[in-house]
Amino acid sequence: MTAYASLETRFSRLSAISGAAGILGWDAQTLMPDGAAEARGDQLAVLHGLAHEILTAPETADTLAAAEAEGGLETWPAANLHEMRRAYLHAAAVPRDLVEASSRAVSRSEMVWREARRDADFPRLAPHLAEVLRLQREIGQAKGTALGLDPYDALLDGYDPGMRRAVIDPLFADLTSWLPDLIAAARTRQAEGPAALPLDGPFPVDTQRQLGLTLMRALGFDEARGRLDISLHPFCGGATDDVRITTRYDEADFSRALMGVLHETGHALYEQGRPTAWRHQPVGSARGMSLHESQSLIIEMQACRSREFVSYLGPLLREAFGRSGPAWEPDNLFRLYTRVEPGFIRVDADEATYPAHILLRYRLETAMIGGDLAVADLPGAFNEGMRDLLGLTVPDDRVGCLQDIHWPSGAFGYFPTYTLGALAAAQLFRAAKAAEPALPGCLAAGDFAPLRTWLRANIHGQGSLLTTDALLERATGAPLGTAAFRAHLEARYLGG
Amino acid sequence: MTAYASLETRFSRLSAISGAAGILGWDAQTLMPDGAAEARGDQLAVLHGLAHEILTAPETADTLAAAEAEGGLETWPAANLHEMRRAYLHAAAVPRDLVEASSRAVSRSEMVWREARRDADFPRLAPHLAEVLRLQREIGQAKGTALGLDPYDALLDGYDPGMRRAVIDPLFADLTSWLPDLIAAARTRQAEGPAALPLDGPFPVDTQRQLGLTLMRALGFDEARGRLDISLHPFCGGATDDVRITTRYDEADFSRALMGVLHETGHALYEQGRPTAWRHQPVGSARGMSLHESQSLIIEMQACRSREFVSYLGPLLREAFGRSGPAWEPDNLFRLYTRVEPGFIRVDADEATYPAHILLRYRLETAMIGGDLAVADLPGAFNEGMRDLLGLTVPDDRVGCLQDIHWPSGAFGYFPTYTLGALAAAQLFRAAKAAEPALPGCLAAGDFAPLRTWLRANIHGQGSLLTTDALLERATGAPLGTAAFRAHLEARYLGG
Repeated sequence: MTAYASLETRFSRLSAISGAAGILGWDAQTLMPDGAAEARGDQLAVLHGLAHEILTAPETADTLAAAEAEGGLETWPAANLHEMRRAYLHAAAVPRDLVEASSRAVSRSEMVWREARRDADFPRLAPHLAEVLRLQREIGQAKGTALGLDPYDALLDGYDPGMRRAVIDPLFADLTSWLPDLIAAARTRQAEGPAALPLDGPFPVDTQRQLGLTLMRALGFDEARGRLDISLHPFCGGATDDVRITTRYDEADFSRALMGVLHETGHALYEQGRPTAWRHQPVGSARGMSLHESQSLIIEMQACRSREFVSYLGPLLREAFGRSGPAWEPDNLFRLYTRVEPGFIRVDADEATYPAHILLRYRLETAMIGGDLAVADLPGAFNEGMRDLLGLTVPDDRVGCLQDIHWPSGAFGYFPTYTLGALAAAQLFRAAKAAEPALPGCLAAGDFAPLRTWLRANIHGQGSLLTTDALLERATGAPLGTAAFRAHLEARYLGG
Repeated sequence: MTAYASLETRFSRLSAISGAAGILGWDAQTLMPDGAAEARGDQLAVLHGLAHEILTAPETADTLAAAEAEGGLETWPAANLHEMRRAYLHAAAVPRDLVEASSRAVSRSEMVWREARRDADFPRLAPHLAEVLRLQREIGQAKGTALGLDPYDALLDGYDPGMRRAVIDPLFADLTSWLPDLIAAARTRQAEGPAALPLDGPFPVDTQRQLGLTLMRALGFDEARGRLDISLHPFCGGATDDVRITTRYDEADFSRALMGVLHETGHALYEQGRPTAWRHQPVGSARGMSLHESQSLIIEMQACRSREFVSYLGPLLREAFGRSGPAWEPDNLFRLYTRVEPGFIRVDADEATYPAHILLRYRLETAMIGGDLAVADLPGAFNEGMRDLLGLTVPDDRVGCLQDIHWPSGAFGYFPTYTLGALAAAQLFRAAKAAEPALPGCLAAGDFAPLRTWLRANIHGQGSLLTTDALLERATGAPLGTAAFRAHLEARYLGG
């Protein structure tokens, strides 16, 4: 057996452990009885510990070196070996003591955050967040040394391989220069047009679920390799060949669950479309969180809030819920699904104001990791940013800097991927339409095949063969930029 | 850290892995999409492989020896160390090659069995079953050498620690001497009495489920540490603090699902009642499959098919399903739930004829492991036994020797635990009534507290502190025997 072949065996074991943890994590958020939380925490900690042991074992390092020396690999195996090395470097860079200290600090900090958010009590969280930040800075330092990167880039690289501040900074600077004006213009235009009529409930949960399943099937979700269930916070998780998405139903408002299902289905299509032969190997993984988010946003924002899709959706909704009248006409539905309204909460934001939330968080987290912003000064800096970017005065930290779990969880470097994903989604959707001019018409007929086929060929089926940049260049003819996103927002919110 | 303390850490990791596998196994039988079967198989194989590696590592052996040399342990830790040694001996006795060969042979054989059973085609299964048997004989030999036992006893010891053929043979010989006559007498008496009136459906699934949950709660099932779901074959599985039982609903007949829920709740009460402080350690495990089965049977057969319980159940059923009339009176319900009728299928058998199915399988599997019965001769021997023991002529192997998955799965040594459990259940129920004379009256009022409290103190909370024999002696004043079971059957089926 070659060294490379023995690595494939080792990494397919790691994939199995990661799949097991994925299902256990899904179960914890959907069905698990409360009293099992501690035991489940132990199970997941043991699985993650075993995976880390296998990945960082001296034998892994030796076999990697041997396989790299062997050489002679074809394209996919060569890319796979490269991804194996990447995974090894990230894992081995951080001493075990630091991993464990960080894991303990995060557990405590997440627990305190839940109470601190509920009580809008930032000072209660502050010492725990400071400890998490201290350890993340150490981790960034350690990974940075191993990867030859500065600490923030090293953390970012864990979520979006190859992404760098040097790429993000000009993109975000450009967004900052025109987004506030575009939001203002969209709001003015919206105020001048007809008001959006509300859709009056109640909407039975089972009808909502059936509708969600119908649309998932239309989008191409493979029910033999996945499920739709309920959780407090919607997500896409599970394992290879077993992609589990969730939503949360509200009888008074079906749109949020429905758009959530469409969003998570976008993630699921990526997972289900990964290259079959490589699905248990690193090169068969999704390329990174920015591209993953681009796949949920291309479905939810680009395709499913388009005028074309809404004209298909209208009759489905009227039939499913047995309603009719002006509120249920496509024009009104489109108005409802493209409303622009600055708000405090990131996860509730529309696609035009969402990037402002990210610009702010990116600015703050790079400063925190760089040592230029102390945890004690975070609320003030957050609130100032909300005034600058969205013109809002934050009334308390609950809807301010306490709203997200990311920082208390130690996920520094994650936030920018949301907006990089939005940029990529616009750029990919434009390229898909250029390649398949019939695409918008197909959406109006509920036919997602052209979009799905294009995404499968250009994104999903490519796994981690190329870098994000090379993948985008290949699919769209250009590196990641803001032009397509700006053009999309202008057309949808300012155009004819 | 003492050697013993480091073993506790090691075995609590093993408990976490086993819990993870338990939840993944549950999911595979309840919710998993079909297309995930292969990936799930890989996940479970990797987890079992890792657990086996940890358990049989040279470090485990060294630490066991060191802890045994240290000595000075109190009662529970000493018993825990004894159980650790037992687990180690069982696992380390079988060479890794043999474990893997057996696992592969079992996978193939189970697959072929499904088709062979469907087509009543024993010759199709025969070569696969022969291979599984050959490997089980090797495993029995290997374990026997390590444990100082003959091969069948070594296999049996894996399911029911300490149980031996020398204990079973006289018990089963005694059963064989009187059971056929008792069945005949019960049948005669039944034929002379009024016929049992059928309960006419349909019975909505959700009502059945709510009724099951109501009774589970009454029995003392802790919903904060468990769930009730649906699967093709009912079982009790899951993990520590997360006990998952399943049933299958039939709108035409609620009784089977209901009795199934009561049966599995008996298993679940054992799992939920294990000693809290030791629940992640070997000594905190259930004592073995015979005692486990005794706990399901004491609930289903002893308690819930008693006249007392049925008098409580009647009104619940009438209210739940909105029915009334003579079929719904306790006398008729009791007749329905205590019908004796020889049949081909073990899992459908009543408590009087059930042991006959086990006597036959025990006779055949000891002969197969002993080399005295070839796989090719199994159908003939099986059908001859059915004639002898139950007076039935088997029409084809689908309802004959192909009906159970145990042998194709390599589970030789498991069958006797069903009937040992039935004997233990009768003996324990008699002792519980002697200790708590109010117990039958409480059952008539739907109050399970006295029974549950007694079982918790005498069985559940004892974990694996004592041997099965010592536990039964302590709880009932006698080793396992047939007297209580015989007295129970005579009272219920031949008595006033």
